[in-house]
Amino acid sequence: MAKSDLSRRTCTVARTAEIIGDSWSQMIIHEMFLGTRRFDGMQRLTGASPHLISVRLKRLEAEGIVRKEAYSTRPLRHEYRLTEKGRDLWPVIIAMKNWGDRWMETPDATPITLTHTECGHETRPYLVCSACEAPIGAVTTRATISDEMQAERRSVLND
Amino acid sequence: MAKSDLSRRTCTVARTAEIIGDSWSQMIIHEMFLGTRRFDGMQRLTGASPHLISVRLKRLEAEGIVRKEAYSTRPLRHEYRLTEKGRDLWPVIIAMKNWGDRWMETPDATPITLTHTECGHETRPYLVCSACEAPIGAVTTRATISDEMQAERRSVLND
Repeated sequence: MAKSDLSRRTCTVARTAEIIGDSWSQMIIHEMFLGTRRFDGMQRLTGASPHLISVRLKRLEAEGIVRKEAYSTRPLRHEYRLTEKGRDLWPVIIAMKNWGDRWMETPDATPITLTHTECGHETRPYLVCSACEAPIGAVTTRATISDEMQAERRSVLND
Repeated sequence: MAKSDLSRRTCTVARTAEIIGDSWSQMIIHEMFLGTRRFDGMQRLTGASPHLISVRLKRLEAEGIVRKEAYSTRPLRHEYRLTEKGRDLWPVIIAMKNWGDRWMETPDATPITLTHTECGHETRPYLVCSACEAPIGAVTTRATISDEMQAERRSVLND
């Protein structure tokens, strides 16, 4: 099955992986959260080739995650901004950062520090339950798969 | 710069992207959270080729995210489990799921429902500030880049 087939799955994790399950797309989105808006900056800061960045930006634009905006007309120059759909990927990047801060050996224990502007304190966001607001994790959560997704899974298991 | 060079960055998001910034690795980890432990199930349920799954599992094992365990000795058969480091990726998968549930069009609005076993309610985990416990997002957060990471960024921008 081709990678693009993930986009036809019922599973929303699969559909999301098909779009942003790529280290360069993740790096572009990460850079945009850090304030990088121009192609040249994205290319230099991610270290990817211009072609790679160009292909990823086009895809992210087609998916409505990024929008292109002119910042100069003579000569015509564009910059890139995250849309609402793009900004909504923040929890994915933060979850990656938290994991990396904990598990990756780096010369610098916390290369990026977050401050919550509403309370003014340094923060390391974590997940809570939307029902009881207690911290939540894999061990205290049960996943129930819908009938439709179960049927899809049974069909590939019985192939 | 080759993809593997992300692993040498100070930035922990880059280092994380280099390891799990790949849709098949994400799908394998997602399947493991759903309880899939055997190679055949992972291969069928993700839809990737056996070769792709095998390469990803070896990498995840080398990174200490997955461990291999014999469940039968005659014949020798293995299954795969997430380590603590692997289980700690749950927030990444949940963030992807939340985003997909909101933004991806699917035949089924919520293919996977989560229940918080501690309170017994259906849940859609969200991020809160570790200092004040209020909901937190991109707009209410400021990122401060360490001197070391700033120096690294300046050096590529001035190349």
